[in-house]
Amino acid sequence: MNIPAPYMLMLGDNKDPLAIKTARGIHYWRPEKCVGQMRLNEDVPSLGLPDMNIDTAIAHGAKTFVLGTANAGGVLAESWIPLIVSAIEKGMHVASGLHQRLTDVPAIVDAAEDAGVELFDLRHSTQKLDVGSGVKRSGKRLLTIGTDCSVGKMFTTLALEDAMKKRALSASFCATGQTGILIEGSGIAIDAVVSDFIAGAVESISPDCAPDHWQLIEGQGSLLNPAFSGVTMGLLHGAQPDVLVLCHEVNRDHIRHMPHVPMPKMEDIMSLALRLGTLTNPNPRFVGVAINTSSLNEEDAINYLKEVGDAFNLPATDPVRFGVENIVDHLVTVFEDNA
Amino acid sequence: MNIPAPYMLMLGDNKDPLAIKTARGIHYWRPEKCVGQMRLNEDVPSLGLPDMNIDTAIAHGAKTFVLGTANAGGVLAESWIPLIVSAIEKGMHVASGLHQRLTDVPAIVDAAEDAGVELFDLRHSTQKLDVGSGVKRSGKRLLTIGTDCSVGKMFTTLALEDAMKKRALSASFCATGQTGILIEGSGIAIDAVVSDFIAGAVESISPDCAPDHWQLIEGQGSLLNPAFSGVTMGLLHGAQPDVLVLCHEVNRDHIRHMPHVPMPKMEDIMSLALRLGTLTNPNPRFVGVAINTSSLNEEDAINYLKEVGDAFNLPATDPVRFGVENIVDHLVTVFEDNA
Repeated sequence: MNIPAPYMLMLGDNKDPLAIKTARGIHYWRPEKCVGQMRLNEDVPSLGLPDMNIDTAIAHGAKTFVLGTANAGGVLAESWIPLIVSAIEKGMHVASGLHQRLTDVPAIVDAAEDAGVELFDLRHSTQKLDVGSGVKRSGKRLLTIGTDCSVGKMFTTLALEDAMKKRALSASFCATGQTGILIEGSGIAIDAVVSDFIAGAVESISPDCAPDHWQLIEGQGSLLNPAFSGVTMGLLHGAQPDVLVLCHEVNRDHIRHMPHVPMPKMEDIMSLALRLGTLTNPNPRFVGVAINTSSLNEEDAINYLKEVGDAFNLPATDPVRFGVENIVDHLVTVFEDNA
Repeated sequence: MNIPAPYMLMLGDNKDPLAIKTARGIHYWRPEKCVGQMRLNEDVPSLGLPDMNIDTAIAHGAKTFVLGTANAGGVLAESWIPLIVSAIEKGMHVASGLHQRLTDVPAIVDAAEDAGVELFDLRHSTQKLDVGSGVKRSGKRLLTIGTDCSVGKMFTTLALEDAMKKRALSASFCATGQTGILIEGSGIAIDAVVSDFIAGAVESISPDCAPDHWQLIEGQGSLLNPAFSGVTMGLLHGAQPDVLVLCHEVNRDHIRHMPHVPMPKMEDIMSLALRLGTLTNPNPRFVGVAINTSSLNEEDAINYLKEVGDAFNLPATDPVRFGVENIVDHLVTVFEDNA
C-alpha cells in the first residue's frame, strides 16, 4: 500500500475520544500530512486541525480522504456512503481502517472506477505476497517486541525514528498495523495477512537497504499472548532484527481481554525473543526497555524505570513521559563498539 | 468444512505419481470413503480403485467429486471445467485442494447454485472465525510437532489415531491441512487462515470434549522454519496439547527449500515447544519421536531409532516402517500414572 498524502481526516459522528485514536495518531506523528478534519457533528472531539468540507480540503491539496475512526463492529455507516462517494467524485482517494471493506460497497467501487482513484482497505491485504525466505538482508533492523498487545510498540518505534532522525541517523519506520500504515503512508497490516505469508510480508516491507540505514519495525502482539503469538513469531523471524526494544505496561496484571492469563515477565519475553531471533539473525540484542508508566505518579515512575534499567542493565524509559534519547544513546554506543 | 463422503477421486491427466499424493493419502487412510477413481488418460497411476465415470460413481453412492491432484501453479485446467460441471449437475458436491478457487469459475458457481450442492475450496477458509481465547478446554489433546515441514506429521497423527482406536481408546483426528481435511472430511487449513485467527481456528477444530477422549491434532511447519514459524506457534498455543510427538526426517541437512538454514536439532524443538506450550497447558510432555528413516537401510534405521530413543528416554519409531505402537504404549502408561 502506498497512500498519497496529504490527508483529510474524517472524524465521524462519535463523541468518544477513543473513537478518533487512529486520526489522533496520524496527526500527532505526521502533522504535515494532515490538511484538515471533518466532524459530522459538534460533539466530536477536535484534533485542533481546521474543520473543512471536501471542496475546501481539496483546495488545500488533500489527496486522500481518511476514515480515521473506530466504531462498534467496524461497520461503515450507511449515512457516510454519500459523503465518501462525493470525496471520490471530487478526486480523492479513500483509506479506511474499518473491518467492512470499501470495496464491498458497490456505490463506492463504481465511483472510484469512474474517478480513477484508489481505495485502501487497511485491514485487508490485497498485495500478492511470497512466503518468507529467511535470507539475511543488508542494512540494520530494529523491532519492538511487547509483553502484550497495546503496550506502546507503535509509539515507541515512531519515537525512536524521530529521535534518530534528529541526530541525523538514517532511519525509517516500517508499519505493520493500520494506524502505522496511515502514519507512514505504506506498510502491511500483518494480522490481516494469510498465515502462510506472515514472515514473507515482513520481509517485503523491510527489504535490503544501505548498510548504515536503520529500518524500525513496528511490533505486534506478544510471543506469550495465546491469541496472537503466531503473528509475533512470524514478525520476529521475518524482521530478522539486529536490535530489539522491549515494550511493557506497568501494573497490567493479565493479558489484555484474558483475565485467566497472567502477564508474561519481561525477562521471559526477552530470553524467548533472543533465542528465537537467532534463527534469522546471528546476534540479536536488546538495547532498551520502553514502559507505559501512566498508572504511576512521576516519582514512582522514575524509581520504577531505574529499577528495571538496573535489573536488565539497559536504558529504561517511558517514551511518552521521558522520550527515548537514552535508548538511542545506547544503540549508538553498541553499534560503534561492534561496527 | 464438512465434506460429505463417500468420494469419487479425480486423478487428472498427469503421469507423475507425486501429482496424486493427496488422493493416495485419502485412499490409504480412508479406503471406505473412496468408491472409485477417474483417470483422464491411461498414463495416470492407479490407486487400485475401480475406474468409474460420473454416472457409475453416483450409482455407487459417491457424494463428493474430489480433485485429488496437485498440478503446477495449482491452477484448474480449462478442460476439467465441463467435467466438474457435469458432476455438479448430476448432484455431486465438489472439493478441491487447488490454489485457484472453484468459486472463481462462474460456470461452476452457477451449476452448483442450480443443483444445490456445495463447493469446498480447501485452501481457502470461508468459515467465520474468532480470535483465540487461551481458555483450557476439557478432554485430552496430542499435537505432532516437527523439526521442519513435510517430515511426517500428518502420517504420524493418523497412525496414532488408528493405533489408539484399535485399542478401543477414544480418539479423533483433527485436520489442519488440505489432505488431512479430505481424509477426515472436516478441519481447517491453518496456513490459509488470516493470521489474527490462527490460534482461534485451532481452538474451533479441537473444542471441549469428554475427559477421556484424545483429540489428535495434525501439526504444521516448524517453530524454527523462518517462513512458517508463525503458523506453528499459533497452532501450538491454540492446540494447548497435553502431549506432543516430535516428527523429524533423518539426513535432511537443511530446512526445506532453504539451503542457508540448517535443520534444527530435535532437542531444540522439544525444549522450545515445552517452554512455549506451558502458556496454554500447565504440563505439556513429549511421549515419543517419529522419524522418517527412508534414507537408511532397515538395520541402520533400527540402530538410529534406538540411539534417539535412548538419548531422549522416549519411544522412537518410523511410523511407516515400524508403526507407532511403542508411542501409544508409552502414552497410556504416562496417563495411567498421572490420571
